[in-house]
Amino acid sequence: MAARRRFSPGVKLYDYDASANCYKVRLLLAHLGLEYERVPVDIFAGDTLTDDYARINSARTTPVLEEPAGTFLQESNAILLHLGRGTRFLPDDPQIYRWLFYEQAEVVPTMGGLRFRLITGRLSPDDDEAVRRREGSHEVLRLLDEHLATREFFVDGSYSVADIGIYGYVHVAGEAGLALEPYPALEAWLGRVRAQPRYMNDLAPYPPNAHAGVSRSIYD
Amino acid sequence: MAARRRFSPGVKLYDYDASANCYKVRLLLAHLGLEYERVPVDIFAGDTLTDDYARINSARTTPVLEEPAGTFLQESNAILLHLGRGTRFLPDDPQIYRWLFYEQAEVVPTMGGLRFRLITGRLSPDDDEAVRRREGSHEVLRLLDEHLATREFFVDGSYSVADIGIYGYVHVAGEAGLALEPYPALEAWLGRVRAQPRYMNDLAPYPPNAHAGVSRSIYD
Repeated sequence: MAARRRFSPGVKLYDYDASANCYKVRLLLAHLGLEYERVPVDIFAGDTLTDDYARINSARTTPVLEEPAGTFLQESNAILLHLGRGTRFLPDDPQIYRWLFYEQAEVVPTMGGLRFRLITGRLSPDDDEAVRRREGSHEVLRLLDEHLATREFFVDGSYSVADIGIYGYVHVAGEAGLALEPYPALEAWLGRVRAQPRYMNDLAPYPPNAHAGVSRSIYD
Repeated sequence: MAARRRFSPGVKLYDYDASANCYKVRLLLAHLGLEYERVPVDIFAGDTLTDDYARINSARTTPVLEEPAGTFLQESNAILLHLGRGTRFLPDDPQIYRWLFYEQAEVVPTMGGLRFRLITGRLSPDDDEAVRRREGSHEVLRLLDEHLATREFFVDGSYSVADIGIYGYVHVAGEAGLALEPYPALEAWLGRVRAQPRYMNDLAPYPPNAHAGVSRSIYD
């Protein structure tokens, strides 16, 4: 089945190497074999706080896709839907939408937010907010595990942008201190994602300038 | 232009009348002129905590669309995308996705969450969390207002599911104590939404059983 579709030449990704929201998009681009230019954005050095960046994304988040030149698309899961269209990574099933919205509403603020804040010194493990995000993370992990108990992938029995979206922050949940052993179906699914053709993982660790007290970003 | 598309008979909406996420879907259904059966779910009386409800939506949220019979779709914005497909409410522009993801990630937890917690006694206006959500709300309102300063609607110059999604919690931001006067473009847009053919508003107030200490729900 065709994994490629036509895009205008000169696709650009405004991208941060330590962001799992950005990594999701890079992973889909790798599966698609699509050439693109990475435009590095140093979130914690203030790169998203400039007037120039506001013109690309008024929400000052990454990633942003530029395609065609001068046309910008924000929000990682919107980019997954856009790039996936017409490929085997986007089956015609509205459950794809369901899981991508669930990911942004539930996965990112729980385990994604917890991991970021613990690693960069914004929270300590015993802080009330850390406890709350940890409990929320386990609720989400339970739900994902139960869904996968009878399924190979999130939607329609095939690997899709729903899996790519959810993989982003779930595969590094351990870095938030969340053990995945109680979720065997989820762990098995992580392995199936890693076994996909052209799978790659170039998610970088948070650099020193991401730490609280040093960083200049929308997260301070 | 055709505003209708074919659905299997017997569309059901598992629905809560005081949820703006549910109201969004009812508003689109009104625009489409689509007949459907409302299945009332009393969130705060524990209706979403049952095993039966978990089979419809493991996340225990509303709304859920059943169409065709036995097939369930969760997440309000996923339902908007599904129902809008093939109609003038879903133009072929990935910016639709961008705004719907932004809505779930930024609009709901700020002004939506603040309104719910203030009205139902879960927060007082001076609590740190209320202050944080209020500041976040104003950032979001500013961004929306700036976007609308040069546009009639969120995407492509025409009223779409992006407007319907964002309207849900923004039109009741005042009930969270957020004055909209500083956002004139946003206020004008609210008026343009209300002027749409078949517009209706049946969002109910939170009932007494939604209050902290009385409620039995996923929010306690």
